[in-house]
Amino acid sequence: MKISSGKLPKIAVLGGTGDQGGGLALRWSLAGYHVTLGSRSVERASAMADQLNKQYKGAKLEGAGNRVAASAAEVVVLTVPYKFQRATVEEVCEVIDGKILVDVTVPLMPPKVARVHLPEGGSAVVSIQKLLGSSVRVVSAFQNVSAQHLRNLDEPIECDVLVCGDDVEAREVVIDLAKAGRMRGVHAGPLVNSVVAEALTSILIGINRRYKVPGAGISITGLSGETTGPR
Amino acid sequence: MKISSGKLPKIAVLGGTGDQGGGLALRWSLAGYHVTLGSRSVERASAMADQLNKQYKGAKLEGAGNRVAASAAEVVVLTVPYKFQRATVEEVCEVIDGKILVDVTVPLMPPKVARVHLPEGGSAVVSIQKLLGSSVRVVSAFQNVSAQHLRNLDEPIECDVLVCGDDVEAREVVIDLAKAGRMRGVHAGPLVNSVVAEALTSILIGINRRYKVPGAGISITGLSGETTGPR
Repeated sequence: MKISSGKLPKIAVLGGTGDQGGGLALRWSLAGYHVTLGSRSVERASAMADQLNKQYKGAKLEGAGNRVAASAAEVVVLTVPYKFQRATVEEVCEVIDGKILVDVTVPLMPPKVARVHLPEGGSAVVSIQKLLGSSVRVVSAFQNVSAQHLRNLDEPIECDVLVCGDDVEAREVVIDLAKAGRMRGVHAGPLVNSVVAEALTSILIGINRRYKVPGAGISITGLSGETTGPR
Repeated sequence: MKISSGKLPKIAVLGGTGDQGGGLALRWSLAGYHVTLGSRSVERASAMADQLNKQYKGAKLEGAGNRVAASAAEVVVLTVPYKFQRATVEEVCEVIDGKILVDVTVPLMPPKVARVHLPEGGSAVVSIQKLLGSSVRVVSAFQNVSAQHLRNLDEPIECDVLVCGDDVEAREVVIDLAKAGRMRGVHAGPLVNSVVAEALTSILIGINRRYKVPGAGISITGLSGETTGPR
């Protein structure tokens, strides 16, 4: 599926009842995108959509089961915990052919979540691209932005989004999504580079603990204002 | 060897004739540390030391062979290219027992240096800790600071230093070294977390190319001024 330029793609956020997914979905809905929260439970997805629509003026979220949500979308965003990553992808794989899958998965291994855990092959997102084959364009993004920042619409998010993927056009779509969510997306190279964003989250969790701060993030320095979009 | 508090540790920079090592050594010498440049060639080390001493007022660098330099130092800093990492460590391993080894190695695989290459086990620095055993305290740092920034003493370095290591006291020594070099060091957890700093360099090289900037870096956001030291 080709994303037509000028028209906003329909988005499904699988795991949209979680903090990270809900926060991203909220920001995109407020930016005018058609966004459906996906969940294993239709009821929970609908309840969360209703709750966010009531709480935030202008939000127009819908809720659905993961498969229905993914089926209707052009861009599918995966925000489930690591242990549900593969099962969720398998649940929707038949309906996402030709689409963009934005994988936000961080391979945390509780309880030592401040210690980097490299899954087999190094990257949890790369393993999903291998599972799906090249007909789905997998892009890795949004691993380092804290859910707390996503829900706080009054403050700018001081965290850049490293966007990795083997298809440059798909990366551009995700960089637009970051911008729509009032974040700065940065081209971070091929999908194999995703290991940095995935592992960095453990370092940020450790920094939050050690320095007693609520939501450390990263910023890419040395970029000129023009190339970087709004902050 | 215990670093006595209040007294500046003697430093050897192995690979000190390179851009990265020379830049770090220069900054520490100017901050009052006793710094020896180490190289496989004594002549090249001495020539580089003389050159930097002439070029930068206040620099008092010395040059020596790697083994002699490491032998006289309390903190040994490894800045050789990846392909010489193991051989250099083997050359000095008998004289660094009980010391701190700061490993700056980035496992780049030319020609595709903007593509993350994970060495076996994930981290090039962790493999050195395994080689040396626990009697040497290995700390990973300074992978993401461009050599160009290190030599430019007039501008502040807009790049934080992720400091990983299993010994917290050794990490503190390296955070002091970052500060002495007018950079901000940040505790980034156990040595296994070093994979982030090692792999991030490939992403930064890719960003330099794509966005046509000379030296992209990273900054940890969300830290309060007090906990972070000078910028």
